[in-house]
Amino acid sequence: MPPFVTFLTDFGLQDDFVGTCHGVMKRIAPELEIIDVTHGIRPGAVLQGALVLANTLPYMPPGVHLAVVDPGVGGPRRALALRDREGRLHVGPDNGLLLPAAERFGGVVEAHEIANPAYALQPVSRTFHGRDIFSPAAAHLARGVPIEELGPPLDPDALVRLDLPEPEIGQSRIRATVLVVDRFGNAALNLTREHLERIGVVPGMRVELAARGERYHAVAARTFADASPGDLILYEDSYRNVAVAVSRGSAAKLLRVREGSELLIQVDAP
Amino acid sequence: MPPFVTFLTDFGLQDDFVGTCHGVMKRIAPELEIIDVTHGIRPGAVLQGALVLANTLPYMPPGVHLAVVDPGVGGPRRALALRDREGRLHVGPDNGLLLPAAERFGGVVEAHEIANPAYALQPVSRTFHGRDIFSPAAAHLARGVPIEELGPPLDPDALVRLDLPEPEIGQSRIRATVLVVDRFGNAALNLTREHLERIGVVPGMRVELAARGERYHAVAARTFADASPGDLILYEDSYRNVAVAVSRGSAAKLLRVREGSELLIQVDAP
Amino acid sequence: MPPFVTFLTDFGLQDDFVGTCHGVMKRIAPELEIIDVTHGIRPGAVLQGALVLANTLPYMPPGVHLAVVDPGVGGPRRALALRDREGRLHVGPDNGLLLPAAERFGGVVEAHEIANPAYALQPVSRTFHGRDIFSPAAAHLARGVPIEELGPPLDPDALVRLDLPEPEIGQSRIRATVLVVDRFGNAALNLTREHLERIGVVPGMRVELAARGERYHAVAARTFADASPGDLILYEDSYRNVAVAVSRGSAAKLLRVREGSELLIQVDAP
Repeated sequence: MPPFVTFLTDFGLQDDFVGTCHGVMKRIAPELEIIDVTHGIRPGAVLQGALVLANTLPYMPPGVHLAVVDPGVGGPRRALALRDREGRLHVGPDNGLLLPAAERFGGVVEAHEIANPAYALQPVSRTFHGRDIFSPAAAHLARGVPIEELGPPLDPDALVRLDLPEPEIGQSRIRATVLVVDRFGNAALNLTREHLERIGVVPGMRVELAARGERYHAVAARTFADASPGDLILYEDSYRNVAVAVSRGSAAKLLRVREGSELLIQVDAP
Repeated sequence: MPPFVTFLTDFGLQDDFVGTCHGVMKRIAPELEIIDVTHGIRPGAVLQGALVLANTLPYMPPGVHLAVVDPGVGGPRRALALRDREGRLHVGPDNGLLLPAAERFGGVVEAHEIANPAYALQPVSRTFHGRDIFSPAAAHLARGVPIEELGPPLDPDALVRLDLPEPEIGQSRIRATVLVVDRFGNAALNLTREHLERIGVVPGMRVELAARGERYHAVAARTFADASPGDLILYEDSYRNVAVAVSRGSAAKLLRVREGSELLIQVDAP
Repeated sequence: MPPFVTFLTDFGLQDDFVGTCHGVMKRIAPELEIIDVTHGIRPGAVLQGALVLANTLPYMPPGVHLAVVDPGVGGPRRALALRDREGRLHVGPDNGLLLPAAERFGGVVEAHEIANPAYALQPVSRTFHGRDIFSPAAAHLARGVPIEELGPPLDPDALVRLDLPEPEIGQSRIRATVLVVDRFGNAALNLTREHLERIGVVPGMRVELAARGERYHAVAARTFADASPGDLILYEDSYRNVAVAVSRGSAAKLLRVREGSELLIQVDAP
């Protein structure tokens, strides 16, 4: 089996950033195989990147998990190589991006700062550490370089952590936050099905949504197929987040929400 | 030679859907090689997906051909694994998506519903069968699992078929439909060169186009290089469809047409 | 090590063009490995393609470097296969696209027109030579077909060359041109750090920019991290071009510039 490197960034595919990183990794380790998780994270959106990474890595083969969403490039933030409890390796900036994913595999058991110039591309640019630091580190790890070769150990408890927005669950009302909007306009919330059940919402029930001061009628559904085209539905998405969708339409457009937007959910008056 | 899986969807590349399916397949069959045909099919556009698939699979190495454009996910539509007369395997939803391509290889000789839970990701989500049903099925087939293992046989004549729009060919006029618009704004029609010849149009001749109530002068050309920048041309595209283009411009923007739009073509009065 | 083919085009990823070329290459040479440099070159932008290719190929493993930005497809422009002084092979149209990259490796030492029908897909379409001529040629070269098999030799000095825009360096003022705008809105100029130093601009100094008749204050910086969000900065980008950026914003939007736009730079009055 080839050594796998999975790769997630906010680089987009319009420019050469992703292709250049592929080239850098292949020069170092021609035998490695790269799986592009996505490069469509919104530029600089560390929280979105962290959530998508945590959702998707359980579907990826074990290997090295490279992720770069790095608005602090060139500043004092550290470059990290981590090992999780299941032995997967994570490479990326110390801005919280890697930790929610590592926690899916039991948490970080070993952390190193990537600091050894022998494993970077020289000279290191000030603005493209994806190419000059992170990709080379991932490729060397995939070749079998021991993680401790990359630089000094760090205390896993001292790594930068993100604040994940928490929902407010009331008696009959939930205040939620949109975490991720996908290309279909489906908006995933910081809620699970269990949160909905706590205010008594189960599939088939009508609910009221409020976003940006406007109110909408929606229905809690199991799947798109339960709804008519144009219906607003609340459902458990494929990563087990509660999400809002419009059957054959865009919920994000209808509700005019995006990542970080607030959404109120309550049982619809009968 | 590695077992090839070709992969076409309407997932886009902004989100992680495609990458997650790659991961799922690689976990099941690390040795398989995935060729991404395109993931830019318009969301839910089954007909566009079917036509692009039929146009492109003849250029792909034989293997498993996975395609997911699936607006009915979670509803009663069946999941299919097909074998065509040349031995290629096709995996996707039973909504007509796979059949025009299979017909390029002699038609469907064996059809099975994908129903065996041993070859799906458990638990199967209600909204992402690309990840949970279709990708695993394709990967298992690529590994050599016999198609009949996936589920009960189906009558190939009972599969869902698409209605392809037919052109109306008159004495001196053709009513055509735009099938696909590409990034250059070129609009492929449901016509072949033979259709044009039936109303007497051959390269070098001037024609009149009408779209959305407006009329345009165009020229039947062999290639872009026969036209001056800005000229509207009618030509046989690389998949042997008649298409409309603007040399170094966008025909779709100029004519304000998109998939499904009507276009009238007639010989230009001299 | 597998034979590598790197691949750069203006095809975009919305359509099947890139996927189809992958399929064509894999049918001819299943063992080759394709690295997609980028397919986001602006349609028909030969100069942008040439610059991105020259910037990125030094990061790619040696092999066959396929590039297609080809607004003259179907016309008289020739198809080329080149060998550079370091032994890398370059395939693409004779419109200047390949030469700046080949010069990074010592220049062209051998040139052939791709003309042998045995190494093309028959029948050759008039509009998609990427699929029918260039991809097959690249795949055959990757398999080890000698370059002279592809067609007659050409004089390297007779190849089409691009005019690269030259900056005007005055006593205290530089007139520069935007070469490439990336997804972050960073605008790379036809300048190096040495050009800036000739008018006395060094990191930390304030400069005045003028674009489209408007003036802006900016600061010469080493990296984004030296600037506050919203600041306009002038910096050396990761390919060693001077570029303009807005920290956590888009310089191209702020200045309303795009490729080919002029920009005046001068030392800011104190």
